[in-house]
Amino acid sequence: MSNTFGNIFKVTTFGESHGPALGGVIDGMPAGIKIDLDEVQRQLARRRPGQSAIVTARDEKDKVEILSGLFEGVTTGQPIGFIVRNGDQHSSDYNEMKEVFRPSHADYTYTEKYGLRDHRGGGRSSARETVARVVAGAFAMQALVSKGISIAAYTDSVGDISLGVKPENVDLSKVEISETRCPDEDVAGRMKELILDVKKEGDTIGGVVGCIIRGVPVGLGDPCFGKLQASLAAAMMSINAAKGFEYGMGFEGSRHRGTEMIDLFVADENGTVSTVTNHSGGIQGGISNGMPIYFKVAFKPVATLLREVHTIDRNHNEAVLKARGRHDPCVVPRAVPIVESMAAIVLLDAWLANNACHM
Amino acid sequence: MSNTFGNIFKVTTFGESHGPALGGVIDGMPAGIKIDLDEVQRQLARRRPGQSAIVTARDEKDKVEILSGLFEGVTTGQPIGFIVRNGDQHSSDYNEMKEVFRPSHADYTYTEKYGLRDHRGGGRSSARETVARVVAGAFAMQALVSKGISIAAYTDSVGDISLGVKPENVDLSKVEISETRCPDEDVAGRMKELILDVKKEGDTIGGVVGCIIRGVPVGLGDPCFGKLQASLAAAMMSINAAKGFEYGMGFEGSRHRGTEMIDLFVADENGTVSTVTNHSGGIQGGISNGMPIYFKVAFKPVATLLREVHTIDRNHNEAVLKARGRHDPCVVPRAVPIVESMAAIVLLDAWLANNACHM
Amino acid sequence: MSNTFGNIFKVTTFGESHGPALGGVIDGMPAGIKIDLDEVQRQLARRRPGQSAIVTARDEKDKVEILSGLFEGVTTGQPIGFIVRNGDQHSSDYNEMKEVFRPSHADYTYTEKYGLRDHRGGGRSSARETVARVVAGAFAMQALVSKGISIAAYTDSVGDISLGVKPENVDLSKVEISETRCPDEDVAGRMKELILDVKKEGDTIGGVVGCIIRGVPVGLGDPCFGKLQASLAAAMMSINAAKGFEYGMGFEGSRHRGTEMIDLFVADENGTVSTVTNHSGGIQGGISNGMPIYFKVAFKPVATLLREVHTIDRNHNEAVLKARGRHDPCVVPRAVPIVESMAAIVLLDAWLANNACHM
Amino acid sequence: MSNTFGNIFKVTTFGESHGPALGGVIDGMPAGIKIDLDEVQRQLARRRPGQSAIVTARDEKDKVEILSGLFEGVTTGQPIGFIVRNGDQHSSDYNEMKEVFRPSHADYTYTEKYGLRDHRGGGRSSARETVARVVAGAFAMQALVSKGISIAAYTDSVGDISLGVKPENVDLSKVEISETRCPDEDVAGRMKELILDVKKEGDTIGGVVGCIIRGVPVGLGDPCFGKLQASLAAAMMSINAAKGFEYGMGFEGSRHRGTEMIDLFVADENGTVSTVTNHSGGIQGGISNGMPIYFKVAFKPVATLLREVHTIDRNHNEAVLKARGRHDPCVVPRAVPIVESMAAIVLLDAWLANNACHM
Repeated sequence: MSNTFGNIFKVTTFGESHGPALGGVIDGMPAGIKIDLDEVQRQLARRRPGQSAIVTARDEKDKVEILSGLFEGVTTGQPIGFIVRNGDQHSSDYNEMKEVFRPSHADYTYTEKYGLRDHRGGGRSSARETVARVVAGAFAMQALVSKGISIAAYTDSVGDISLGVKPENVDLSKVEISETRCPDEDVAGRMKELILDVKKEGDTIGGVVGCIIRGVPVGLGDPCFGKLQASLAAAMMSINAAKGFEYGMGFEGSRHRGTEMIDLFVADENGTVSTVTNHSGGIQGGISNGMPIYFKVAFKPVATLLREVHTIDRNHNEAVLKARGRHDPCVVPRAVPIVESMAAIVLLDAWLANNACHM
Repeated sequence: MSNTFGNIFKVTTFGESHGPALGGVIDGMPAGIKIDLDEVQRQLARRRPGQSAIVTARDEKDKVEILSGLFEGVTTGQPIGFIVRNGDQHSSDYNEMKEVFRPSHADYTYTEKYGLRDHRGGGRSSARETVARVVAGAFAMQALVSKGISIAAYTDSVGDISLGVKPENVDLSKVEISETRCPDEDVAGRMKELILDVKKEGDTIGGVVGCIIRGVPVGLGDPCFGKLQASLAAAMMSINAAKGFEYGMGFEGSRHRGTEMIDLFVADENGTVSTVTNHSGGIQGGISNGMPIYFKVAFKPVATLLREVHTIDRNHNEAVLKARGRHDPCVVPRAVPIVESMAAIVLLDAWLANNACHM
Repeated sequence: MSNTFGNIFKVTTFGESHGPALGGVIDGMPAGIKIDLDEVQRQLARRRPGQSAIVTARDEKDKVEILSGLFEGVTTGQPIGFIVRNGDQHSSDYNEMKEVFRPSHADYTYTEKYGLRDHRGGGRSSARETVARVVAGAFAMQALVSKGISIAAYTDSVGDISLGVKPENVDLSKVEISETRCPDEDVAGRMKELILDVKKEGDTIGGVVGCIIRGVPVGLGDPCFGKLQASLAAAMMSINAAKGFEYGMGFEGSRHRGTEMIDLFVADENGTVSTVTNHSGGIQGGISNGMPIYFKVAFKPVATLLREVHTIDRNHNEAVLKARGRHDPCVVPRAVPIVESMAAIVLLDAWLANNACHM
Repeated sequence: MSNTFGNIFKVTTFGESHGPALGGVIDGMPAGIKIDLDEVQRQLARRRPGQSAIVTARDEKDKVEILSGLFEGVTTGQPIGFIVRNGDQHSSDYNEMKEVFRPSHADYTYTEKYGLRDHRGGGRSSARETVARVVAGAFAMQALVSKGISIAAYTDSVGDISLGVKPENVDLSKVEISETRCPDEDVAGRMKELILDVKKEGDTIGGVVGCIIRGVPVGLGDPCFGKLQASLAAAMMSINAAKGFEYGMGFEGSRHRGTEMIDLFVADENGTVSTVTNHSGGIQGGISNGMPIYFKVAFKPVATLLREVHTIDRNHNEAVLKARGRHDPCVVPRAVPIVESMAAIVLLDAWLANNACHM
């Protein structure tokens, strides 16, 4: 179950990392949106491994094939089926994973839950599944852009090295200046160095992705279980390796007083309402208030170490594992477009749901 | 929309803080579970305002009336409808809220979204809605307890004062020793002092709730969008005033290396598998691994200050507001049973879904 | 599970026939609709037993209490919780049902599925559950009426006695002239006679309800699984005792040729499109085409006979049962408002979903 | 929206008749089921056009490609993505459909609803979409067969020519003896003659499909909106050209008395319960009672006539249309495997849901 995300704009994904293809179905895409497929492909390229020295060297082509729902370049309101063929597979790299449970991976839990698993490259538990999310997110994004909404994520920290800029002040034009996707040349340089050091040691390192959404009208999100922050949290925490989510002032805000955290309203001469500060992160009572929405997602250091680790095999005997395969020392730079994609899916779903509040 | 949470075990809530009653429907409750209604009432008492000097003095009786789905004290598999009458209402306390938008509340966003709102006591945006969650959670909990699962939350921090104990080492027997629900006498005392200080100043303060779930078998949760952590995050972030969620090592873990964070497997002589450490927080690949699940939820300082604040009215003119009503200076102690309730709802839903993985 | 119907406009019901109350939650009700509660009560009165000699003599007051979601008589967009207290219960009439399975009732299937059942008055399997559907339908109807949509059902046949008028020619103003709800004085009289004869014999009789929906704009319904006729069928076949559903020319149309059944388009001088005939029943490709929608629902003769029947008890031994209780010899007249209610729920859901097709 | 069917076993389909491919995602397939892909292909062949003189001559190869969710021939519990490439397309046959609305087709309603449509071959409204349903149904069927459940449909009538055998007495071994799929050599012969006559005239004819499900245990289906008959009705009425659904004695039963229609229980010496008659059609109170389930689905004569018809174009001016393309004079024989497929999807969903009733 639950390979579908969303209520009205619904994305269903399928596929294992070493099967013939991954893909998905985008349902509820509004009709009449002109789609730039090159833009979809560009987002896939940002997620793609092999972009630089600091990400895994698998060279997957990740070419998306759209199978339905587009007619003469425009969405028809019908479901958009798509596939991305798996290419460059070294399944034999994973042969010993057949017998052995990798620590802090899904090998053990899948085997216990389902009685069997496709062990090649992690199968369904591989982050390669996010290819389909990025395709769906890129479609959602184009619908949102047509309404003036922009979504941009960036690398906020890698290990102890942090951007140290408040989300609303981040210079989003600089995200792509560096392969780390940290929008500050100096900080990005230090992050890269750390990642290369970690890689040399066969180790990995965690980090945090920040995301800012601008141009959201007042009214997206629902009062109770469908609070916009709840949907964003579900979306983000469903990404592989995500360990935490916060929006607005988040955990830091919990250490403060109400007088420090409330956002006073002001109205300009046209009666347009905004808030003086935006500690709330653009959402009040679960509903967007027109201010920028910002949030952060924490990612753990991935568990695939390129060194020997002690573990157990499927008969629960001791075993030693040395991962081969090709793996990221830090997933954060590649997580940036995934976070954007999931945010776009949530926002478009909320937009369409909001259309159904009144007759 | 979206006043329902869950897929198989589904909880639907209704009700405003100053209407005749709140209530809900619990659907998908497994048949044949013996229910102790006193225990349900006890959980409601823990959520109830007016328990002590540090929580709001509204004395709501919060007596639940079960209308269906129980027969001779046992669940029948049919939906459980219930209501909790609203009692002690001082609607006139809220008269000026009719015209004025309280900062960092839902007044403005509701009005913009729906064109109108029930302003009395915050209406549907009031945290009083969580009464229904606590009833549903108490039912879920009794089902889980029958399978050996226990769920316990506690106050981990208030403002800058923190318990400072790793979740798995928390002495859960001490949660109720203090009205702050911090399971350490000394720390609890300092928290209480802080809350009373803050209250005296008409201010509020945030904090963090921790939660530990023990006895969960391997296999709950789904691989993709239904990862157990994604469902927990959605549940927690749908609670009023929640600003952040993390599980396992969370944000802190993102600063570490893979070698520090992986949890090595061990099997005892009976072949029972566990992990030496539990940085993962009991979930791997979205699926419970049999180790304790733990997570934290950050709550902001609530926005209702008992002092004058500048704001705007519904015509977007400047206004000054002084909240009367009775309000919590810190929601964290009362959030403890709400966090437990939402966790129980998520776990029971995951349990039942897991029954449907095989024929 | 599945005590909820609908996707955007969602109705959840609860309650057993002999519990304290039935009720439900209406979620997704559009905001800003003025509600006439007397009209809701009038629909309940049409469903109510004890209206006349030909329906069961239970005198349930069926007074609905609205608990939320209305403010100053207008819907707020928040969930509408409501209850209807059970009054005049003769639970002792059902004492022997505790031990014995009534033939063609749900006693056996419930007991096998859930391991236990609330036997009093059929418990959850009682058609009394439809009280909650009528309340929800009455809310939906008022929203639809505000957009010019009307829904009217009528008794099309009782046993072999049939109205014999094409749905679009039925004189809907005459539905209430008779307690049978057949809009033809003569036919209605013969139906009544038949029902009284059947009642005298302790027997029951089946029949068919017709329904016509006018004023529906082009565009409601979805192409694939959400075809408007599929949603209507699910709604109607979920009513107790319903055995068949057809729309447009239905089963009869299957005996005809394409040349006889196609509906040719015409456009008037304003370009307004209609069809010369309406064999399709107002839906093409799953989507309303602007012509009247009509359908029929077949109801079996209910299985509660006021005479001795041979059956088995819960130990699977032979037993003899003589129902006491008070029961309808023919459910069709009371099914009329239930069919209307479910149709209204489907139509409003489709209306709101249609709002979410475009941005 | 709503290109997904099912709650736990969920089938999502995509694709237009003249796009690159159709396909779908099967989610919630239980793990550990051995799949015979030749059997899947055999069901596709039964649905395929071009099987005989009485069905359309399009020779689609309809070769399914499974992209995920199978590992070494066994289901893994992960979603099964699949595609079926479109082959033999004569899109130019449909050129005039770009401008003209075919009567009793979805051309007009799609255009009004979405503002545009893929007109080639009916696009998404083409019955070619059912290819994906047949694939999904074939997977479901193999799971059900492993539990002793069998599902078989057959042609019950074509025009006025009817099989005239009670569903439970149908000789299912004879369904495939004739291309009409009517399991009686003589009746089948007359049906074929009628279809050929109709075809010669450029006309079409309707008919009825019957279906019998055996080996269902007691307990599938839910009491309220999820009644098994409601799910079956929704499934069947979502098939193109379906106009009516009935189960058990259906519309005919509505003309009878309770004494004629109740099914008395008997228990054999082992305490095994059955009913003497089975007028109910194997379902009581929405839940299977262990007796054979049977139902019928009425199909209209399809609207594509191979003769000139008067209609309007997209500017609402008069137009004349002569369909070319290749079309079935009677869809009933090819609907047989589609009805079986949808029934299998409903039954497996109900089976899995039933697993979640108890802990």
